[in-house]
Amino acid sequence: MPTIVQKFGGTSVADPARIRRCAQRVVDARQAGNRVVVVVSAMGHTTDELIALAAKVSPNPSPREMDMLMATGEQVSVALMAMALHALGCDAVSMTGGQAGIETDGAHRKARIGAIDRGAIERVLGSGAVPVICGFQGIGPDGSITTLGRGGSDTTAVAVAAALDVAADGGTCEIFTDVDGVYTADPRLVPGARKLRRISHEEMLELASMGAAVMHPRAVLFGEKFGVPIHVRHSQRDVEGTVIVPEELIMEDIVVVGCALKPDLGRISLKGLPRADGIQAQIFEPIAEANLSVDDIVQTEFGDATTIAFTVEHGDIAEVKAICQSLVSRLGRGEIDVEVGLAKVSAVGTGMKSHSGVASRMFRALAGAGVRIHNITTSEIKISCIVDRPDGERGLQAVHEAFGLSEGPAGPGALRAEPVAPKPEAHPA
Amino acid sequence: MPTIVQKFGGTSVADPARIRRCAQRVVDARQAGNRVVVVVSAMGHTTDELIALAAKVSPNPSPREMDMLMATGEQVSVALMAMALHALGCDAVSMTGGQAGIETDGAHRKARIGAIDRGAIERVLGSGAVPVICGFQGIGPDGSITTLGRGGSDTTAVAVAAALDVAADGGTCEIFTDVDGVYTADPRLVPGARKLRRISHEEMLELASMGAAVMHPRAVLFGEKFGVPIHVRHSQRDVEGTVIVPEELIMEDIVVVGCALKPDLGRISLKGLPRADGIQAQIFEPIAEANLSVDDIVQTEFGDATTIAFTVEHGDIAEVKAICQSLVSRLGRGEIDVEVGLAKVSAVGTGMKSHSGVASRMFRALAGAGVRIHNITTSEIKISCIVDRPDGERGLQAVHEAFGLSEGPAGPGALRAEPVAPKPEAHPA
Repeated sequence: MPTIVQKFGGTSVADPARIRRCAQRVVDARQAGNRVVVVVSAMGHTTDELIALAAKVSPNPSPREMDMLMATGEQVSVALMAMALHALGCDAVSMTGGQAGIETDGAHRKARIGAIDRGAIERVLGSGAVPVICGFQGIGPDGSITTLGRGGSDTTAVAVAAALDVAADGGTCEIFTDVDGVYTADPRLVPGARKLRRISHEEMLELASMGAAVMHPRAVLFGEKFGVPIHVRHSQRDVEGTVIVPEELIMEDIVVVGCALKPDLGRISLKGLPRADGIQAQIFEPIAEANLSVDDIVQTEFGDATTIAFTVEHGDIAEVKAICQSLVSRLGRGEIDVEVGLAKVSAVGTGMKSHSGVASRMFRALAGAGVRIHNITTSEIKISCIVDRPDGERGLQAVHEAFGLSEGPAGPGALRAEPVAPKPEAHPA
Repeated sequence: MPTIVQKFGGTSVADPARIRRCAQRVVDARQAGNRVVVVVSAMGHTTDELIALAAKVSPNPSPREMDMLMATGEQVSVALMAMALHALGCDAVSMTGGQAGIETDGAHRKARIGAIDRGAIERVLGSGAVPVICGFQGIGPDGSITTLGRGGSDTTAVAVAAALDVAADGGTCEIFTDVDGVYTADPRLVPGARKLRRISHEEMLELASMGAAVMHPRAVLFGEKFGVPIHVRHSQRDVEGTVIVPEELIMEDIVVVGCALKPDLGRISLKGLPRADGIQAQIFEPIAEANLSVDDIVQTEFGDATTIAFTVEHGDIAEVKAICQSLVSRLGRGEIDVEVGLAKVSAVGTGMKSHSGVASRMFRALAGAGVRIHNITTSEIKISCIVDRPDGERGLQAVHEAFGLSEGPAGPGALRAEPVAPKPEAHPA
């Protein structure tokens, strides 16, 4: 019997009526002949309300106590979901992260799952009941409650699916959300965008900038590592969504599956740095420690001087710049250049590994739309161009069009590649 | 160093400002040279809100899931209290009931504490931090979260104080509440009522009908069993309250320490029952199973017929009557008589064990106030008279006056007993 892990996000369980609708989905999946495990987030704005409450008590609450507080949000949800299932005649047992055997490290507010002791979940399944598990939380080495940070509930669901090895018997991890799948581009920006039936974990990761709204990259990474098929679908509409599967399961040889736009970027360039070993670590370690993220790192060298440039979201520029300034003054050398008002257009597809000409087609499309390219970075399955912010949407539409993503059903109809063009020199982030 | 367990009820932690004030009390107790353990209830109306939420999901939620839901209330409180303590520079660690080693049976919504594994609490104390423990909850034999039912947070506090043996080093269990102690009578009914400095556990239990508003009898029983001194005091006013101590620690030979009125009672009489063994169990077992309580049971016999009468709170009369009717029809014999509009006036004091004349003084006081006595029941340290409801307050005032409770400081000034008068024939509840 296939095992399906169903994860319902905060919007899906925002009120009792929605909780009852989600419970009906669980019952439907059981009646269709599956074993079902449920993972639930905190209701609607609960998390924000708890954060506001803590702020009224302490200006700087400790991470351990924040976890103790935040974990109540999911605990309320699982209890209510179990009650809703009971009301539909379906046996169910709610479980905190700790009760479900979700063991994490001790990093409060950003804990990582170390292991899942599947015994407790298996026992509930074995009794014929539905385990209803708190997303976003686990138990640390000292028995304290931990939370997983951003994307935590998705990660819980995929990790539970991995622990139960759902792929082995034809199961999936279903992520119910408020969009009905993954599109070839954001439909709000590209009217012709189409929903994808299938996408690989790798492609989904590279589409993170648009995918973040659908599913957190962290959970996708987990799915990739353990080969968990993830079905992203709408919680209130009964339609098929998009299934994220291991690349080898994608039969069609699609070159580009989707395009994405990341707006509001800035670019920081550190010029005239010494050509010392480890200079990169000196820049990016303090940035990572401050929980800031950078992208599209490009390094160039002239004589004994090195230039390192990278993109940053607008909101993070001031903080990143301060870190760079402290480095430059420590080195006694180098200068900092900041550009703002940029955006990034990306095309993603595992097919481009084996096909060339993808980059040139993209550049031609952008040129044809009158979009100037500032920088280019590539990975095995992604090409990204930094452009001026006002050109972003037009560039996205042009690229989407150039790869034939608007035509016919997504998949078989998509573009086949052209002959060789050298990949531009660049460094993936 | 004395250990003090401080318990803050729902009203005391109803909002962030009050939580901060309670945290200050903890810091003050530490600075006065004590080790402090904190037990906290859910904030204000949280419990009611969670019950209402559950009702919107299921008409009949399972006890296990209700416990999962309700337990979040205290978990929010302990996290916020720990944060408030941190903000005052006081190290503190919040603990769920399970984390604090509070082991209960598996009776959800009315679990009983079986044992407290004090190791976890001791470790936090040993590290110099304040353990902040969820009241009202524990962990059942199967690892499920359980709640203790009515009076649960008080019971947690006293049980933790017992487990830590606070009495051994001069510590107490402090119950912070919204009254400033135990009075010789309810001050709203008897203007001359005075606050008691000390009272025995036994007396406190007998004063339950007035004591219930102060502290739950269940917690007092726990305190009596393990000899835990309990200090009942106001959470927002810094005055001494009333200390509940083992009887042997009360030096003054006070005959009557307090009076109480229980209004709105009914009396059910079962007449013409057969004189069979076990007839009492057949009546009171189903009543107890329905979680109803009766009091002042009197049994009288004429020939081969037995009459059993008892008092019931007005709200429970219909349910108790139904249980009795089913018994009578099963027996094929007996009739049921229901009186309403009654009240009970009681006088309590361990001193009456060794002094007689207390009963006659009480009857004289009631007669002098023109109060007709319907029934009398006594225990070793209590005399109760059932009277007409409209006479209740006047009767209470007369008895309070007759025992000299309004005069001078509570304690030394109170009444000494008169010579012998036979105790009335009656049966304690």
